[in-house]
Amino acid sequence: MKNFEENIKTAHIICIGDELLIGQVVNTNATFLAHTLNLYGIFVEKIIAVPDDAQAISQAVADSFAHTNIIFTIGGLGPTKDDITKKVLCDYFQTVLVESGEVKQHVQTLYANRPCLLNHLTESQWLVPKDAKIFKNRVGSAPIMLFEKNGKQLFAFPGVPYEMKVAVNEQIIPFLQQQHNNKIIHKTLILHGVGESVLAEKIATWEDALPINIRLAYLPDNGVLRLRLSGYDTSEEAIDEKINTLYPLIEPYYIGEGETKTIEQILGDLLKANHQTIATAESCTGGKLASLLNKWSGSSAFYMGSVIAYDNSVKRDVLGVDETILQTKGAVSEETAKAMALGVRQLLHTDFAIATTGVAGPTGGTPTKPVGTVWISWATPTEVVAKEFRFGNERETITDRACKQAIVQMITLLKN
Amino acid sequence: MKNFEENIKTAHIICIGDELLIGQVVNTNATFLAHTLNLYGIFVEKIIAVPDDAQAISQAVADSFAHTNIIFTIGGLGPTKDDITKKVLCDYFQTVLVESGEVKQHVQTLYANRPCLLNHLTESQWLVPKDAKIFKNRVGSAPIMLFEKNGKQLFAFPGVPYEMKVAVNEQIIPFLQQQHNNKIIHKTLILHGVGESVLAEKIATWEDALPINIRLAYLPDNGVLRLRLSGYDTSEEAIDEKINTLYPLIEPYYIGEGETKTIEQILGDLLKANHQTIATAESCTGGKLASLLNKWSGSSAFYMGSVIAYDNSVKRDVLGVDETILQTKGAVSEETAKAMALGVRQLLHTDFAIATTGVAGPTGGTPTKPVGTVWISWATPTEVVAKEFRFGNERETITDRACKQAIVQMITLLKN
Repeated sequence: MKNFEENIKTAHIICIGDELLIGQVVNTNATFLAHTLNLYGIFVEKIIAVPDDAQAISQAVADSFAHTNIIFTIGGLGPTKDDITKKVLCDYFQTVLVESGEVKQHVQTLYANRPCLLNHLTESQWLVPKDAKIFKNRVGSAPIMLFEKNGKQLFAFPGVPYEMKVAVNEQIIPFLQQQHNNKIIHKTLILHGVGESVLAEKIATWEDALPINIRLAYLPDNGVLRLRLSGYDTSEEAIDEKINTLYPLIEPYYIGEGETKTIEQILGDLLKANHQTIATAESCTGGKLASLLNKWSGSSAFYMGSVIAYDNSVKRDVLGVDETILQTKGAVSEETAKAMALGVRQLLHTDFAIATTGVAGPTGGTPTKPVGTVWISWATPTEVVAKEFRFGNERETITDRACKQAIVQMITLLKN
Repeated sequence: MKNFEENIKTAHIICIGDELLIGQVVNTNATFLAHTLNLYGIFVEKIIAVPDDAQAISQAVADSFAHTNIIFTIGGLGPTKDDITKKVLCDYFQTVLVESGEVKQHVQTLYANRPCLLNHLTESQWLVPKDAKIFKNRVGSAPIMLFEKNGKQLFAFPGVPYEMKVAVNEQIIPFLQQQHNNKIIHKTLILHGVGESVLAEKIATWEDALPINIRLAYLPDNGVLRLRLSGYDTSEEAIDEKINTLYPLIEPYYIGEGETKTIEQILGDLLKANHQTIATAESCTGGKLASLLNKWSGSSAFYMGSVIAYDNSVKRDVLGVDETILQTKGAVSEETAKAMALGVRQLLHTDFAIATTGVAGPTGGTPTKPVGTVWISWATPTEVVAKEFRFGNERETITDRACKQAIVQMITLLKN
């Protein structure tokens, strides 16, 4: 058995762009790339963001190559004058730019229907470094480049998130797989209702018995806990065997599996498999729950729609919540939550419905119903249940956690 | 007049945490801090993310102090064993940890009602570096620290986003303001319907006439363009005078102002000022538009609710879209969009309504209605209008851009 450590490579990610340094743009590119590389067995040891400045870029590259053999740069490949990455990297690797007929044709085809855009792209987009390997950017104009020198590799990606993602998934990961012959298999289990430390105690004996080439990672995420098993130079069967002995220990918390699968996708899969439909009635979550349920392609098979009943008149007139309940129990109450769930289930003719009503703050809290109080109700063809939660004191966190709970408890109901 | 350059300080941000390097968490902390510091006149020259590793942290601090006098670290201050930042910084600055009665009392008060949480916080939380200045963390247990040595400053923040934000806004910015006596004034204008390069040409003469201590920044954001004027050692009146001569040039594009103000807040302000209300009927945006409109506290004054009519039966049965229209014109059509807007306006008794219906993809496109086709309709007390858009080919981008257009065009309608 090869030691798994031998398979792990390290890399740095260098993100280029003033917009990152002035806090105008959140660096989701680095997160996506780090996650993808990590799964593939490249551990990112450092992520650096530098401005569109030649000196800063080449210094960052030199600094990183002192510690790693692989660098990924993101950004600065556009046609405008502040995009200088290509030129800087050519200088660093002592090569020159030459015209690429292939890239030129690709860009002209890509923008054939948008002449005004093509107009703005100067010939700079089809100039490529003479000594770099060029990968096609299927959905954009800036090609992906690989510079190599003295055993060091530098991959340069455009900063447009969609272009970067497509290139990484379609071109770079297959290329790296072929080159490095990495054999890493991941299986990720998704749990709910158990904390990291409690679970670690429960499965300690099982975890200690794992062979050195199967590693376990705990990835907590706001009430949901992902357990990722990574096998190096092993078989799918070997990992499945380990997971089969784990299932009995985690059974009460288990809600699904998949590394990139979200809890709303798990709920959607369950509903689709049973040809069942769902709707939501939302007050405090204000449409957030709806947009999670229909975020993924194919959701029209199980998601019918929602009523966002922000104002009490909507709860009453559209969802049919009794005015007496609103007056005596209040909008944030078990009775209102249940009436909302039942109301939307009936109105939209679905099998299931979820309703939320709460105090998202920062104002509107009372001693008995402080900011963070949320009632969630779940209606099924046979019953309606509701539960009260306290989700802290920040508006965004409160509504995020309410959506998560709404979904995981619905999954639990569906499984039972 | 002092040269504005003298007022600009530089800094590095070092983010600490394995979760950043494996791509588990998006680094929104760095974005927030960089944006806040930038406004205050501290230019962030580098953002670095390193793992929870003593050698990596102290090396990053040493590397950064070779290039800057101010470092902000974020993360690694929790009570668990992987949180090592405090210890590493003490070693770096050659100081030791001592118990702080003040921090101890604060933490015990903060968690008085949550004994199980308090249980998990070891005494490590009230051990503070002997030679550091301590700032109170009003909403959490890990104190904020300032280490100083040989003219170098290092501020250490916890990685919990809400705790970091509160500390920066309430403690650190006021402290820096007092210490550095910076006088920077910003005014940000929000424009729509004009690109950066076109606008730059239109206002070139005006821009060239700006004094050296008033700087202009173009901040484009998916169809919305922010123009930020920053005045160094000048008066509010001097900036307003410049803006007054700018207004006539940008009048057709101007929709509002405010550095952190969002377009949905501008719409909300306009509605509130007129005591008017709004509702949405959403198909392809699926609740995203609703959740933008009620994202901010106070939205209940103008936002009544929404119908998310994902399935055609909901468009027909709840919003009253004619079945003949759905059959002959299709769900993605001018007629359906208008009927949805009129329907929800009537159902929820609002002054205004916005409706969206489109092909968010990746499936469902046709030659005449390809993926990215979105019809948006706006209903007012006197009219209903609709417009067709093509928003590219990625599901998330399509729905984001549809929401932005829905809001900015509503603002334009309200202003006229």
